[in-house]
This record gives sequence, C-alpha cells and structure tokens, in this order.
Amino acid sequence: MKKVYLMGATGSIGSQVLEILRSKKKDFRLVSIACGENVDKAVSIIKEFNPKFVAMKQEKDAKWIQDLFPSLQVGFGDEGLIQAADFGTCKGLFINSLVGSIGLRPTIKAIERSRDILIANKETLVVGGEIVTRLAKENNVKLLPIDSEHSALFQILDGKDISEVKKITITASGGAFRDKTREELASVTIDDALKHPNWTMGKKITIDSATMVNKGLEVIEAHFLFGLPYEKIETILHRQSIIHSMVEFKDNSVLAQLGKSDMRIPIQYALTYPKRETYDLDVGLSLSHHSPLTFEAMDMIRFPCLKMAYDAGMAGGLMPTVYNASNEVAVELFLANKIKFCQIEEIISEALQTVKNIVHPSLDQILETDQITKTRILRNYT
Amino acid sequence: MKKVYLMGATGSIGSQVLEILRSKKKDFRLVSIACGENVDKAVSIIKEFNPKFVAMKQEKDAKWIQDLFPSLQVGFGDEGLIQAADFGTCKGLFINSLVGSIGLRPTIKAIERSRDILIANKETLVVGGEIVTRLAKENNVKLLPIDSEHSALFQILDGKDISEVKKITITASGGAFRDKTREELASVTIDDALKHPNWTMGKKITIDSATMVNKGLEVIEAHFLFGLPYEKIETILHRQSIIHSMVEFKDNSVLAQLGKSDMRIPIQYALTYPKRETYDLDVGLSLSHHSPLTFEAMDMIRFPCLKMAYDAGMAGGLMPTVYNASNEVAVELFLANKIKFCQIEEIISEALQTVKNIVHPSLDQILETDQITKTRILRNYT
Repeated sequence: MKKVYLMGATGSIGSQVLEILRSKKKDFRLVSIACGENVDKAVSIIKEFNPKFVAMKQEKDAKWIQDLFPSLQVGFGDEGLIQAADFGTCKGLFINSLVGSIGLRPTIKAIERSRDILIANKETLVVGGEIVTRLAKENNVKLLPIDSEHSALFQILDGKDISEVKKITITASGGAFRDKTREELASVTIDDALKHPNWTMGKKITIDSATMVNKGLEVIEAHFLFGLPYEKIETILHRQSIIHSMVEFKDNSVLAQLGKSDMRIPIQYALTYPKRETYDLDVGLSLSHHSPLTFEAMDMIRFPCLKMAYDAGMAGGLMPTVYNASNEVAVELFLANKIKFCQIEEIISEALQTVKNIVHPSLDQILETDQITKTRILRNYT
Repeated sequence: MKKVYLMGATGSIGSQVLEILRSKKKDFRLVSIACGENVDKAVSIIKEFNPKFVAMKQEKDAKWIQDLFPSLQVGFGDEGLIQAADFGTCKGLFINSLVGSIGLRPTIKAIERSRDILIANKETLVVGGEIVTRLAKENNVKLLPIDSEHSALFQILDGKDISEVKKITITASGGAFRDKTREELASVTIDDALKHPNWTMGKKITIDSATMVNKGLEVIEAHFLFGLPYEKIETILHRQSIIHSMVEFKDNSVLAQLGKSDMRIPIQYALTYPKRETYDLDVGLSLSHHSPLTFEAMDMIRFPCLKMAYDAGMAGGLMPTVYNASNEVAVELFLANKIKFCQIEEIISEALQTVKNIVHPSLDQILETDQITKTRILRNYT
C-alpha cells in the first residue's frame, strides 16, 4: 500500500486524485493533505479518507478543523504546507496539485523525504526546475507529470533514449479566445475568459489557457522534465485536444499520445506507474467520433505570452520565475476585475524587462525574486 | 557489420532496402539476394553490392547471371529461394520482401539459421503465423515488421506489457476505391485499381488495398505478431495515412505512431533496431501541412474482404491460408484481365466455403492447401 501526500486536495486536480484513490482503497493510503479555503470539502475528505495531517490555508479554518477532529494533526499557511509535505517518515507519493509557485518549497521537502513527486503544478518546475530536477536525481526520486501534455510525453518517452529525440510537440487547444483577433481581445470579460472549449479546470489555468501562458509554462516545464533544449520543443494549435503531445525521433518517426479530455487518465497513470490499470470510469477513445483532427502552426504574434515564455526559458536563471510571478499576480488582478485581459501580457512583458538576471540562482534568490516581482506589480495596480 | 539476406531485392520494398543499405555501407553487408524477373536490376545490384549468392526466379536468367559473374553462386526457382535464405552459416538479418505465400519456406530456413527476420511479406505470417512465431521463439529470433502499420504497432509496443493492451487499431487509407459504392465497383478497370491515393507500391499490394484484402491480411498478421485475439484488433478508415496505427491501453490511454507515407522509415527502423538513426533522406512530419486528419468507422458490408479476413482469422487453422491463396490467384487473374474486380471477393468467399479446416495444421498441410486452393481456382477460371 502506497502512502499519499496530497497538496491541493480541495482543488480540481485534487478532487480527481481522490476519485481515483476512492476506487483503489486497497492500494493507497492518504496520509497528509493540504487544502485551500473550502472547509466543507476538507471536512468531508477527512471523514472519508482519515488522513493523519491536514494543512489549511487560513489559521481560523485550521482551528475549526482541529476542534472537529481533536486527534488530527493540523497546520496552516505556508508553514502548514511545508509540514504537510514533510509529515511522517515514510516514502510514498507526494502529489503537488497546488496553484502557483507556492508549490516549490513543499516539493523540495518531499524530495528530501525521498517521496516520488507527482506534479500537476507546473509553476513549481517553471520556477525551480533546475533545483527540483537536480534534487530529484540526487535523492533517486521520480518526477511523474500529471499535466495531460507532459504525461503524454512521459508515456511516449518512457524507456526510450532521449538522445534519439529530434523534437517534441506540445499541442494547444488555443483556449477560450483562439478565434478572436488581438483587437477583439481588448473588450473580453472574466466570464468569457473562463469558458475553455475542451477542459473544465481551475480558474487560474483556464485564464492561462486564454492568454497562452499555460502553454508557455508547459514549454518551460517540458524543458526541465525531459532535459531538452528549447529548440527541440515546439507547440501546435490542435483545437480538439485529442492528441496531447508528440515526439519526433531522429529517424522522422513520430509517436503521439491520445485520449479524451479527462485528467483522471494521466492522474491514474502517475499513481500506478510503471503499471497501467483498468480505467472503469468511462469508455475509451473512438476517433471516428472526434474526426476531423486539425493542426495549425502556432502564431507567436497572436500569442505573445508564448513567445515570452520561450524567451524567458532560453534566458534561463531567474527569468522563468519572473515570467511566472508576474503572470500569477496579473491573473489575480484580472480575476479581481482590476485590470483588462490584455494587461496580463503587458504586465509580464514589463516585469521581464526590469529584472536583472542571475544564471544559476539559489532557492533563496528564486523565492526572493518571486516575492519582489509579485509585490511590485501588486503595488502598481492596487 | 550485420550480414543481410534480402529476398525480393528487385521489388518495391527491396529497392528501398537497398537505398538504406547504400547509405550505411559500413554497417551492413549484403550477402545473399533473391530476385524476380528483372535481370537488369539484378545485375546492377550485383555490381554495386557484390553479394555471394543470387537466386533468380527463372532458370534462364540464373544461367545468364552465372555467365556474367562466374565466381558468384547462383540458384533459381523455389529451390533457389530456399538456398538464398539458407546461404552461409552466419546470423544476421533476413529480409523477406517477397510477394505471396512463397515467402514462408525461406523464412523458416532463415529462422533455423538464427537470423532475425525483417518481414514485409505479410502473406508469410498469414499462412504460417503459428509455425513462424513458434520457431522464432524457439530459435530466439526477432520478428521485426516492415509494413508501416505493423512497424507502428511494434514501435509503440516495444518495451510495453502486452497484457495492458485493450485494443490495437490499424488504420486503412481505403485504397483506390474508397469513395466508390459497391455498384460502381462492377465496372472498374485494372488501371483504376492500381491508382493508390497515398502509397506507391507493388501491383499486388495495390490491388489488395483496393479490395481491402490488404487490411485483412494485416489484421491476421497483427494477430500473430503481437499475440492478440481478433476481438482486440480494430481497423479504422483514415484517408491521410499519417497515423499508421494505434494502441489503446486498459487505462484508456492511446499511443499512436505517425509519419509520412515513406516506407524507408519503417525499413530503416527494422534495420537499425533497437536503435534509431538519423534519417537524412527527407524532412520530418509537419502536421499543420497534413491537417485535417479524418477517421471513419470501417464498413464491413462495403468491404466484405475485410470481414472475411476476420472470420478466417478467428476460424484459424487452414482458413487464413485459404483466404490468402484464393486472393493471390484472384489478383493474378484480375491483373491478367481474366476476371472482373468484384470477382476477387467472390473467389475468396467460395474458397473459404469449400475447405475442410484443420485446427493446428503442419507446414506440409499448409503448403498443400495453399497449392490445392490456387490450382483449383486457376483451373476454374482459365
């Protein structure tokens, strides 16, 4: 029985992880969870899965939970998150389905505990990719992606020789605004941006899809996960989200992973890896029902946030951190109705132009840059 | 340096094999070849690659070659084919790119010589699949498919656990007559049938594509190559021939292999397996240039030859042999302008109805049935 440490248990990915765990209670034991602000959901998870440690975002929620479950160990805030990741001495699976760079420190803690890392939180790898991949290697810990695109690449590349890869291609649905011109983007609303054509996901990632920042983060994540230079990482517009990603080998042969838009498939794969288990929750893919599949070259002028991600990634050092931090705050401001949609890309662009880069930053330098970038933007716009 | 024994050297696949060998002269040494009736081509191959043994189809051609190259060892006819496969004592790669069930006996000889088998000749596996796969296992010999669909499946399944496969899907372009109704088929000509929409291939396989017998043979070949029951082998109409085949695993995740319609890719993969080598002959796949990709359910009423292949495969024993033998002769008769296109399926259907099946036939029983079926049909139609 594998022990599971689940960060972001009340979120969209967290709920789907719990759905899989529910169907495999003999194989997994939920030991520790970190939750957001949905106390009711946290209570119901605690009642069903009986974890030993629970971290809440807010102190008041943690106290309330502690009163309800006196024998439970409870924490809160950033420190609670670290405790949830660090809890106990066993190995097992650490699932990072947090939102934003806040996932970095708990992930490092879990690696130090020799827990395999299941990562749905791409910001962690964007910000701390160099450090996380190095520590994972040193601690002989697996990094198992949960993102559908990276799970696709991981499934294809598993057992393959990475030196035989000519390029990888990450597919992009195009998000809510794929058919709008740049002029039309000026007047879009929050509700418009939250309507993703293919996937039902959390708010932040849905906005990131509309700006194409999400694809940018995925490009940087892929760079770190698979150790490939940016020149070998391409993106393509594939509206149907059926092919989740592709690998072209040096002999011109291409392998692709396909599936329905159902995150439970990559989640289960990461949980049961290296085995695959029967997935009973739905029927398989019938391509004749999804025909035709279309592919369009990605337009970097239409989607400048993707171009900036490549530039930030190639510059390396602190630039991916700044790219991500500025986006995190910009999305927050947009969702709070304080800026317009197109200001998201302006904020990222400005932030990237102001920072002084460091080639191989330390964890402290990364966290400091993350914080400074966020604080400065917040100050300017509120 | 690997020794290569190439059967069908003057054919379409043979020529493409030689093109790869030409680009990798340090890695491969052509030892023995079997040729058809194209003597000029045989002479030019002998001059360029300097093999030690050459089999010609006709005795007169063999004599002519012998006169030209006195130090060469030469054979002819069925016996020459066996000699070409059996030649020398070294291991190496035996490439079966013959046409028809005539490939079976030389393949068995090569297996007994512990040569790895690169197989483009699907009829060999359709007719002798049970025997060939058993002997390959006993002699610790690899069976490496060259057919684009089976190479796709092999590339996907390499290193994977076959027990985790839910189904495989073989794609079909639909051949020359995919848009014709059954009524329209009544009046098609040989020239019409030889116009394949995507691939330039030999005559027999092009006709087999038009009747969908080719897909039927591939279904049976896949059954033997991958040890999967027919219930797990599906076909789908995919006009663009970009996805060459797919595997759905029991967790509903699908892996697919894609590429241009270029047989040199699967040929090179089989030659260099388990490594992939740079393929300089062409640029890679750009999906935006091939968009959209379409998929249609396969219509077994429109394509009765495919349905008959499934039935023959499931019946097992001698039925695949009869299916193949009757088709071989029917195609010959069609190409000789002695029957109409739709008579091909009638001949196959009649043949399948007349045979008395044997569950696990011996090689002799298979070869006898192959011969009897062909002779009887020829007698009826000439």
